[in-house]
Amino acid sequence: MATTPVPGGQVGRSLPRLEARDKVTGRAEYAHTMRLPGMLYGKIFRSTVPHGRLIGIDTAAARAMPGVHGVYAGEDVRKVIPDPYYGPAFHDQPILALDKVRFVGEPVAVVVASDPHVAEEAVALIAATYEELPAVFDEVAAMSPAVLVHDELKPAGTFADLKHLKGRKNTNVARDFHLRLGDVDKAFAEAAAVFEHEFRTQKVLHVPLEPFAAIADASDNRLTVYSGTQGPSFVRSELARLLGWPENRVRVKVPCLGGGFGAKLYIKLEALAAALSMLARRPVKLALSMEEQFYMITRHPTTCRIKSGVDKNGRVIARKCEVFWNGGAYADIGPRVTQKSGFTAPGPYDIANVAIDSYALYTNLTPAGALRGFGVPQLVFAYESHTDMVARALKIDPVKFRRDNLLRAGRPQATGTVLKDAATDAVLDRLAQCIDWGKPFDRGSGPIRRGRGLALGIKAVISPTTSVAAINVAADGSCTLYCGTVDMGQGSDTAMAQIAGEVLNIAAQDIAVTPRDTDITPYDMGTLGSRSLFHMGHAVRLAALDAKEKLAAMAREVGEPDGSNTPVAELFRKKYGMQAGNVIGAGTYKPDYTPPDSKSGQTPNVTPFWMVAGTAVEVEVDCETGHVRIVKLVNVADCGRAINPRIVETQLSGGSLMQLGFTMFEKMNIEGGQVTNASLADYKIPGMLDVPATIENVTVENRQENGPFGAKGVGEVATFGVSPAIANAIEDAVGVRVTVLPLNPEAVLRALRVKAGSPLDSE
Amino acid sequence: MATTPVPGGQVGRSLPRLEARDKVTGRAEYAHTMRLPGMLYGKIFRSTVPHGRLIGIDTAAARAMPGVHGVYAGEDVRKVIPDPYYGPAFHDQPILALDKVRFVGEPVAVVVASDPHVAEEAVALIAATYEELPAVFDEVAAMSPAVLVHDELKPAGTFADLKHLKGRKNTNVARDFHLRLGDVDKAFAEAAAVFEHEFRTQKVLHVPLEPFAAIADASDNRLTVYSGTQGPSFVRSELARLLGWPENRVRVKVPCLGGGFGAKLYIKLEALAAALSMLARRPVKLALSMEEQFYMITRHPTTCRIKSGVDKNGRVIARKCEVFWNGGAYADIGPRVTQKSGFTAPGPYDIANVAIDSYALYTNLTPAGALRGFGVPQLVFAYESHTDMVARALKIDPVKFRRDNLLRAGRPQATGTVLKDAATDAVLDRLAQCIDWGKPFDRGSGPIRRGRGLALGIKAVISPTTSVAAINVAADGSCTLYCGTVDMGQGSDTAMAQIAGEVLNIAAQDIAVTPRDTDITPYDMGTLGSRSLFHMGHAVRLAALDAKEKLAAMAREVGEPDGSNTPVAELFRKKYGMQAGNVIGAGTYKPDYTPPDSKSGQTPNVTPFWMVAGTAVEVEVDCETGHVRIVKLVNVADCGRAINPRIVETQLSGGSLMQLGFTMFEKMNIEGGQVTNASLADYKIPGMLDVPATIENVTVENRQENGPFGAKGVGEVATFGVSPAIANAIEDAVGVRVTVLPLNPEAVLRALRVKAGSPLDSE
Repeated sequence: MATTPVPGGQVGRSLPRLEARDKVTGRAEYAHTMRLPGMLYGKIFRSTVPHGRLIGIDTAAARAMPGVHGVYAGEDVRKVIPDPYYGPAFHDQPILALDKVRFVGEPVAVVVASDPHVAEEAVALIAATYEELPAVFDEVAAMSPAVLVHDELKPAGTFADLKHLKGRKNTNVARDFHLRLGDVDKAFAEAAAVFEHEFRTQKVLHVPLEPFAAIADASDNRLTVYSGTQGPSFVRSELARLLGWPENRVRVKVPCLGGGFGAKLYIKLEALAAALSMLARRPVKLALSMEEQFYMITRHPTTCRIKSGVDKNGRVIARKCEVFWNGGAYADIGPRVTQKSGFTAPGPYDIANVAIDSYALYTNLTPAGALRGFGVPQLVFAYESHTDMVARALKIDPVKFRRDNLLRAGRPQATGTVLKDAATDAVLDRLAQCIDWGKPFDRGSGPIRRGRGLALGIKAVISPTTSVAAINVAADGSCTLYCGTVDMGQGSDTAMAQIAGEVLNIAAQDIAVTPRDTDITPYDMGTLGSRSLFHMGHAVRLAALDAKEKLAAMAREVGEPDGSNTPVAELFRKKYGMQAGNVIGAGTYKPDYTPPDSKSGQTPNVTPFWMVAGTAVEVEVDCETGHVRIVKLVNVADCGRAINPRIVETQLSGGSLMQLGFTMFEKMNIEGGQVTNASLADYKIPGMLDVPATIENVTVENRQENGPFGAKGVGEVATFGVSPAIANAIEDAVGVRVTVLPLNPEAVLRALRVKAGSPLDSE
Repeated sequence: MATTPVPGGQVGRSLPRLEARDKVTGRAEYAHTMRLPGMLYGKIFRSTVPHGRLIGIDTAAARAMPGVHGVYAGEDVRKVIPDPYYGPAFHDQPILALDKVRFVGEPVAVVVASDPHVAEEAVALIAATYEELPAVFDEVAAMSPAVLVHDELKPAGTFADLKHLKGRKNTNVARDFHLRLGDVDKAFAEAAAVFEHEFRTQKVLHVPLEPFAAIADASDNRLTVYSGTQGPSFVRSELARLLGWPENRVRVKVPCLGGGFGAKLYIKLEALAAALSMLARRPVKLALSMEEQFYMITRHPTTCRIKSGVDKNGRVIARKCEVFWNGGAYADIGPRVTQKSGFTAPGPYDIANVAIDSYALYTNLTPAGALRGFGVPQLVFAYESHTDMVARALKIDPVKFRRDNLLRAGRPQATGTVLKDAATDAVLDRLAQCIDWGKPFDRGSGPIRRGRGLALGIKAVISPTTSVAAINVAADGSCTLYCGTVDMGQGSDTAMAQIAGEVLNIAAQDIAVTPRDTDITPYDMGTLGSRSLFHMGHAVRLAALDAKEKLAAMAREVGEPDGSNTPVAELFRKKYGMQAGNVIGAGTYKPDYTPPDSKSGQTPNVTPFWMVAGTAVEVEVDCETGHVRIVKLVNVADCGRAINPRIVETQLSGGSLMQLGFTMFEKMNIEGGQVTNASLADYKIPGMLDVPATIENVTVENRQENGPFGAKGVGEVATFGVSPAIANAIEDAVGVRVTVLPLNPEAVLRALRVKAGSPLDSE
């Protein structure tokens, strides 16, 4: 059965997801549930101190336990990987702790056993001794070198703008980014009013429903890793680097992912699993429990100081932002967050004089990395809370104040890069409209008060990054698409198939998207930061175009006139005399990029596209308990052209609900470096009862001219405005301002009591 | 670690095989030993009659056995595959027998159980009743339509030259090929002498050490098959056709093969496994026993009548060949053998008047198909026995007689296609030289007599066929090669890596060759008929060239001058700013071809290259027992340019030893359609003690100008001359001629007794 052409195009249709059936029938395979013949199970013994010198490990009792195949510590790893430090930005993280431990929960040793429960029991028999060292937990405190997390900085060498940090000592700053536009000091001096506020965000987790899992199967000259990773290409090249092997001897296969959200990027368990497989000479699986997620990777807690100078017309003429990113014990991708998101700290406002200072700090906490929004939600919480606070102080309507200061398409952002195809004004207008801003509103008078708030943000995409795709047209015209974007629930396979189908004029569901496997799927920088639809979308489009051109050449070769509707299968039969042959198309995409000037932070070309979105909410605040109920939540996003409108919609609601948890109740409680709520019983993620009664997802279709079929990424945008919109709505309802996340009942009640002049016992 | 360029080239080196380590360490995975989770095992219930109407099957007892999941017969298959007839040339073979059975051993039903032993026991509980029909077993007898194996011919529609047979009734002839050159009747009338002989070859088996195995895993919209197949692309398209699905919903993965030799081509167990998996809704494995190989596929027994007219100068001026191919109950690829090998029936001789009539016959035996040599060894046995017999009758030295009549490069073969790059004269000279032909030779005088013989043959490659390859250059310069040629022991992965490495100037062992998987490896017609090195070798070369051109373009783009020795990894870093990206090269190869004229059989372009090889032997014949000992065996082949000389050598010795078994003792004994020696205890294949004391493998390097780096295929060539060289040597030793294979002691002793005037009891 040949694939039949479909009129009307594939792009813009809300097609059902290609992988849905496999997931609902239970056929989909996850790393967490995979088994290989002869596989062993590893369980991790973790540090109990936040900072300490590792004196000794007693593994004798664990080794003696029946069923235990081996117990391995850092020095064992060195037998197979002599220099076992990894990381995307810095080679700072040991596969297992060597001389020191730097956070509570850091992997120190691993028991490998024939059964995971045996391994777990044996872990309980291990004892380690440490010489405890002073520790630092706060990002601002870490600016002082009084306590040093690392003796020396070790940039990975892959990012040009980190190279100058090589060998730097006596600092916890893993990256400092500075941007200067105009003369901010002069402008502050000339301003009619100056406002300064400080905002803090807490340490939160990704909590994918499938915890981290990786299986490694090493032979003497090949390594195969099965991992629920968002970045198989990086895992492959980093494992090859650690092993000193060429990339083609390392194979990374990605089964289904039960969520990622940025947690499953770069090396997580893969290097440890690889080392264990080489040591044990058997396939080894590492699969974390939900609780162990608290010791893997988190979002960056931040302290953000924001200062604005406003002229007498209500125009912001100066803004200074200081952002301190709490990166935890190992840098992971934090230094990129510091720069790539740091430069958007002034928000979507057209301000002539800007100063940004953004710092990545090492502390003795679980490392922080990418989490849906890549730092932007923390910044938007700061600048959009600040916007409302300034407007209120100036007695200007917050929406009018935003409109008056809005950065509109055609104008340069603080970096100097012009905002193109970014519908800031339409997004703001729709936000206001959706909650009837400016219309009469009953705020209530009893213990339940009502308020409205909105907020919007912008984000650049990490740039420059590369995606490669290939497509294989079989002799019956059916197609197989090879693209390294990992579909972890966001529907990318479906969108990519729609793009390929659009070019080749065949139904998306007739395109088979192969599972991610670095032996098969070409290079992709990673599924992260809303980059895939734009970058891989282009690569897929180019691969399909390449195939289409080759099919056209084949048509000419077999004497078919241009534009004839001869089925592809017929072209193959004519050329090869039978059902034979293939057409292989390949496409590579990397956007233009100019790195920011190292002094001014200026560049005309910092991102190939801008994300613009916001959230408006209507809330009810219970003045007696501090409880906030979200009555209505509206997400508005400029999505370029939606490739699959239904998927865009679910991305918006999903993103906003995730950020809702971070806004309202999620928080890792840490005391003396110990996480005191490291379980999902104590660390609450949103459930069905936490979902607002009304959620609306509104898209502003605003063709991204340089995007594939006018599209751009929307995976993160709905996270931007949620926290400040709710904080603004709380102030609108009850007149109190909370500047520290989460906005849980305790925080709101404390603020209400302070306002009422009867504070709770002080924090 | 980037891959470093290697000076001096890859082609022409005797590199060790890439897969050797996996095989000797036991890591290599075979379909026969694979297990999937939840997998069931099928065992086949087979027909006990050679020809009969299927009246009924009683499966109740089998179904009732604990552990049995289901018992399925032909009508069950129809529920999932409504038209369950398959085959590469004819759609004549049912997945399970429907109305009729046509050979003893034909699959009639399958028990599917949780354990293969349970399935086997349950098979013994099945009873079928048949209305027996008259059967035909002999290929010459089958020319008469007295017994019809099929009611009507059903060409698959894929081969243009078979379409005219559609719907033909009242015949067992599945293909008749005729070639006429000059005026053969006139030439016979003018000849000084005319000789006519008939030769017969027996039914023999491939006997790969790994018997047939296939696992199918069908879901509602995808089918994955793991099969030890030589032709994954064909399996995919044929399964897709049977299911009415597009090809991209069918995936065929090929683990290691424990030998193939032509047995594992086209559909063997795959369609049955697929149907069972769909019926049982579980993965199902079918793995045959050694004994069951006797009921799957065999070589064609042949009857070949050859008649030559010779002028007074010892020049052959006319030759008529009649070849009858015993195809068994289903056509498989027999009709191609009939034509593609049939046209070489006159041998490597320059004869002005030729008539060939070649017939594929249906009989009530196990089907016959491709087996190393694709029919040519049977033909060479006939024409090179005949050549010696004629020379002896004319009292001309057999080598001189061959030289006088040899078809030399530059002259047209009987089809009209000119012999190019085919060193017939050098091969003949070397053969004679290697056994000291023309020098004094002691034939002995006691019961042990000695003799020498030689023979040579030519073969065309099946044409036109297509191969596609792709190569992926990673950002560190290491490469992954995607080619569908199945390495079943012939060393093709190594040779292909050498070709790619030669083009890209990197070591072959640094190129990873991916396992065969139709979701990954592009189309290839099949690993058969010595076509792969030439066709896939070209495709790989073109893919590597494509990649090389893209790398050169990348070098220019990043400002590297042409011819600079910048490492590939450095080019990627310059272009992408980090270790990122890929270069994907693709290559397709299909030779020019002109189909033979349907009446004269003439074409200027029947094959892209000619294989030329021969064997010379020295034997000892024990006149008291008829036992023949091969003292020395020399294979001489024109191998074009050897890509890997050591692999060429092992192909030559392997091919000649396989044919040695077919020559000296292998034979399926069949009585009334029943195979009476269907076990490897009774059907003897060569063991170490059967290997000649001396084997020499001599290559005539004779660049194949249109081949990849001057190469051509040698997988079959050493089979050509073995049988007639030994038959000729026996006559040289003891003066008797055996014209029927095998040349076992009984046959030789019978001939000796006839010569001595005291025959054994007649056959």
